[in-house]
Amino acid sequence: MAENIHPIFDRLVSRSEREQRLEQRSKVIWFTGLSGSGKSTIAQHLERFLFEQGFFAQVLDGDNIRSGINNNLGFSEVDRQENIRRIAEVSRLYVQSGIISINSFISPTIAIRQMAKEIIGAEDFIEIYVNAPLEVCEKRDVKGLYKKARSGAIKGFTGIDAPYEAPENPALEIKTDEVGVEEAVKRVFNHILPHIKL
Amino acid sequence: MAENIHPIFDRLVSRSEREQRLEQRSKVIWFTGLSGSGKSTIAQHLERFLFEQGFFAQVLDGDNIRSGINNNLGFSEVDRQENIRRIAEVSRLYVQSGIISINSFISPTIAIRQMAKEIIGAEDFIEIYVNAPLEVCEKRDVKGLYKKARSGAIKGFTGIDAPYEAPENPALEIKTDEVGVEEAVKRVFNHILPHIKL
Repeated sequence: MAENIHPIFDRLVSRSEREQRLEQRSKVIWFTGLSGSGKSTIAQHLERFLFEQGFFAQVLDGDNIRSGINNNLGFSEVDRQENIRRIAEVSRLYVQSGIISINSFISPTIAIRQMAKEIIGAEDFIEIYVNAPLEVCEKRDVKGLYKKARSGAIKGFTGIDAPYEAPENPALEIKTDEVGVEEAVKRVFNHILPHIKL
Repeated sequence: MAENIHPIFDRLVSRSEREQRLEQRSKVIWFTGLSGSGKSTIAQHLERFLFEQGFFAQVLDGDNIRSGINNNLGFSEVDRQENIRRIAEVSRLYVQSGIISINSFISPTIAIRQMAKEIIGAEDFIEIYVNAPLEVCEKRDVKGLYKKARSGAIKGFTGIDAPYEAPENPALEIKTDEVGVEEAVKRVFNHILPHIKL
């Protein structure tokens, strides 16, 4: 194959061509917040809403990440960092493919989100703080995790015996003890629309 | 957010909805073969050709994987297996997103490709053997790797001092010492079209 010696650059389908095809600009919408704050609920409703508006997005969350690419990671400090690193790298691939990535992960520290931002690229990283008081999250306890953390069955649980550092300057903050999911999705959509429309 | 208690299943945008939107069925086209066999050249031309035909595909290869999600892996036995495992998991995410994944990796053993197939799912995995004699690959030596392997600067190089196990029953075999890249792409396209068209 003599073609091997030709430069390959004109062959690769560029991000820009992909964005044109999908009629959008690709970004990573990164939701951070306590367990039970409502991140995944908002992320999933946002995915659906974007799809109905003609956008093409993909939620990445514990359900499809922890059970797949990160199924060999635990919850040690090192593994948590590797967890977020891989998620950021997968999001970067999606963004390069022209797809909007909607990420829902506790991602508890400023440093760990900074790492994600650096991998993804600051211009493609939109940080949204899903904020609910710990008491509210713990009362919801959708997955029963707070109960386990309080009983000591889970160690190092964010908000109980591991810190959560709120973003200092998020692109948007949603207080889910004050607004419902539909309003939350509307606010997120209004914020990201200028960034994702062609 | 009372919505938290509702079942989430109707919210998630399904693979089928995504495939409808992109007007295709998503599959993983997995190219295996020696370094220099022409895998990536075919993969990249295929990506371009599919895009021109209205399909939406993404090449995964060393360029965007080894430099990203797998940048903390070396070339030990364990790391090679983890390399392919993560690639398979990323491909699975793409397929679930409705996107055709075009994978170009030496993936030298039957066992390692079997692992990839199991992760991706047999029904979504199309194995294509890009076959060129070692002498031909070594003569091409596009990246100068064979020279380094022969001199001992690289250890465990597939075909030199590590085995390559050809697929026993690939979906398709392309002999790149006999056919050029355009013919190769045409053959691959003809083979996969019934699988990717809606």
